[in-house]
Amino acid sequence: MDFETFFSTELDALRSEGRYRVFADLERQAGRFPRATYHGADTPREVTVWCSNDYLGMGQHPDVLAAMHAAIDECGAGTGGTRNIGGTNHYHILLEQELADLHGKESALLFNSGYMSNWTSLSTLASRIPGCVVLTDALNHASMIEGIRHSRAEKLIFAHNDPDDLRRKLAGLDPARPKLIAFESVYSMDGDIAPIAAFCDIADEFGAMTYIDEVHAVGLYGPRGGGVSEREGLSHRLTLIEGTLAKSFGVMGGYIAGSAALCDYIRSFASGFIFSSSLPPTLAAGALASIRHLKASSSERERQQDRVAALRRRLDAIGIPHLDNPSHIVPVMVGDPVLCKKISDDLLARFDIYVQPINYPTVPRGTERLRITPSPLHSDADIDHLVSALTAIWGQVGLKRAA
Amino acid sequence: MDFETFFSTELDALRSEGRYRVFADLERQAGRFPRATYHGADTPREVTVWCSNDYLGMGQHPDVLAAMHAAIDECGAGTGGTRNIGGTNHYHILLEQELADLHGKESALLFNSGYMSNWTSLSTLASRIPGCVVLTDALNHASMIEGIRHSRAEKLIFAHNDPDDLRRKLAGLDPARPKLIAFESVYSMDGDIAPIAAFCDIADEFGAMTYIDEVHAVGLYGPRGGGVSEREGLSHRLTLIEGTLAKSFGVMGGYIAGSAALCDYIRSFASGFIFSSSLPPTLAAGALASIRHLKASSSERERQQDRVAALRRRLDAIGIPHLDNPSHIVPVMVGDPVLCKKISDDLLARFDIYVQPINYPTVPRGTERLRITPSPLHSDADIDHLVSALTAIWGQVGLKRAA
Ligand SMILES: Cc1ncc(COP(=O)(O)O)c(C=O)c1O
Ligand SMILES: Cc1ncc(COP(=O)(O)O)c(C=O)c1O
Repeated sequence: MDFETFFSTELDALRSEGRYRVFADLERQAGRFPRATYHGADTPREVTVWCSNDYLGMGQHPDVLAAMHAAIDECGAGTGGTRNIGGTNHYHILLEQELADLHGKESALLFNSGYMSNWTSLSTLASRIPGCVVLTDALNHASMIEGIRHSRAEKLIFAHNDPDDLRRKLAGLDPARPKLIAFESVYSMDGDIAPIAAFCDIADEFGAMTYIDEVHAVGLYGPRGGGVSEREGLSHRLTLIEGTLAKSFGVMGGYIAGSAALCDYIRSFASGFIFSSSLPPTLAAGALASIRHLKASSSERERQQDRVAALRRRLDAIGIPHLDNPSHIVPVMVGDPVLCKKISDDLLARFDIYVQPINYPTVPRGTERLRITPSPLHSDADIDHLVSALTAIWGQVGLKRAA
Repeated sequence: MDFETFFSTELDALRSEGRYRVFADLERQAGRFPRATYHGADTPREVTVWCSNDYLGMGQHPDVLAAMHAAIDECGAGTGGTRNIGGTNHYHILLEQELADLHGKESALLFNSGYMSNWTSLSTLASRIPGCVVLTDALNHASMIEGIRHSRAEKLIFAHNDPDDLRRKLAGLDPARPKLIAFESVYSMDGDIAPIAAFCDIADEFGAMTYIDEVHAVGLYGPRGGGVSEREGLSHRLTLIEGTLAKSFGVMGGYIAGSAALCDYIRSFASGFIFSSSLPPTLAAGALASIRHLKASSSERERQQDRVAALRRRLDAIGIPHLDNPSHIVPVMVGDPVLCKKISDDLLARFDIYVQPINYPTVPRGTERLRITPSPLHSDADIDHLVSALTAIWGQVGLKRAA
């Protein structure tokens, strides 16, 4: 077999579908977010980023950067080991305590990314609990899907955010079998939010564990940034809460929080935790500072909500269609992959605005979109500029306006 | 099902086997490696680390730390996105170019860890190449095993480092089927090295791809630190070279290097690459500085080899049994999990020496060991201290000396 030809042919197929991804080469500038330097064109130039998951701009917060600098001076770069073999640093322990406290749980466990925390935890639980069956929301993230797939446990997919379908699926199962219900709080592409209380009620009824991914909610919801589960007073009803340090907290890493026995179990049996070098102290220290700040300060969350509302009002006023939802995510719907990429290219080339097009397989075909994420640091002038750019392009590409 | 009881019972089983892991809470001290502060006892105290995979002490190299500080000042903490959605930073691109050059390949691709680069690349290749069969060395790392398992491709395990068995296994397969041979260069627990040239010859004979994990070799072997494949002039014969930034390079992250089409293929189709936030600029910048330094400087490698030889001579002189091998890893064999842990505990409590016991499942039962990794920064006095501590303990626990 000619492997090179195989790879090239597969890549050509992506290109012909308009799905080949070209990464924008960006240099973020500490202290100037949402501005960044775009290196893709001939001469680097300044652009405004409107699609970052550094939702609150914590990636440039002075406390976070100071903590990162201090940890480098103290501890150096990496840890030089897995958590068990020389790689447990004092900052990991402090951060795990902070995360447990954030979610009102006994324990927490760190991973190198949110992808790893989902993949590793779900695959470990579902493969090792004898006879486990997983009930998984139809729109769960790739990292959850792959973790469940890896476990080879039986899996039932329930309709997105649908408690009735979940109950129906559970009712058809042997009551004696261990069951795990896996879902997200905020779904990042549509911005809708799960009916967590209803899911917990059903879990109680059928004796199931609940596994929630709060990756797009931690830092953003709840009085201390403990996520939607904190805001709704439901943290104690969830068996396991999973999150990332790479979005609202502005750094990198993933985690789970739960009972002491649950976290110790995953710590002790999970391949993806045991056999990988641990998070550098500088990242743990930065995340720790970020979480502590957002536990005590709500001004970033309030200002973000204000910016989200302001952008939505302006889009409504000019009739640019966007998905309505109860979260901070503003999906502007295009419905065509080529057009979606063209609008994104125009925004960058003509208006110095960077919003990545979101195409299949990240979203279903026909629902291609620009996913806009207003942050506390986007000014009124930034919103004016974005709205007038979209207005100009919308007319030119011949897309319809809403009534 | 009572999940809490299940978790506790499983943990109790580990405890009764002497396999329950207690992580040593260490604070590495930049500039003082191999010294670290041990936080486990009542009062923190200074210990000497003898089991780090920061093999050359690059985790505290001034160039690396300066690059990390500068990147934080310039770009802030995290990237705020996946590589495709706002998360490609200029440092990622520079680092991928540097890695491609290090291995004499057209391209390279970054991941958040070596675990992820193995798991993601192997699962993507083996699942997507139609009819692919994977030939995998019996002692391959967990991250490779899990990636192959995840692919659900057919798998044949060949005897460790055994070209004859590999050839036998290949000869039994349909010549038309795509084949992927996966192995490591330096095996980290025994320190033995694969017969890479023989494997490449066989791969050519049967038209197979070759996948090598050089995690424990990059930075350490070859005139520029390009691994055993560079030292032996074989880089161009390997389809894919995988490595980590978390061991000799002292930071964190993983990567693959290969043809442009191969890297672009994985970039475009691999879930674990596409759907995870990218590496913070500070880590990419630190790794870049580390690789550049080790490309130009061989003094760290030479001094490490000198320390390894010195320790081996001293162990031989007093008859402490260690596995002979052609690498930098010195496995001191104990052969019993409880004793192995006791020796490690004694070294820490009585001699302020930290060497983690290596027990099942990391190594086979009956081959429990202390895995010692001399670095360029261990002094003659450090070696004296370690050897006299081992001598004292060896007598007390009643272990045999070699002739
Ligand atoms: C819902 C969800 N879970 C998990 C992840 C993975 O987290 P991380 O980026 O930290 O790997 C993401 C996105 O990146 C996500 O959208
Ligand atoms: C052979 C081998 N491959 C891959 C890995 C994973 O690399 P990382 O620590 O960067 O996740 C390790 C150890 O950690 C390893 O020993």
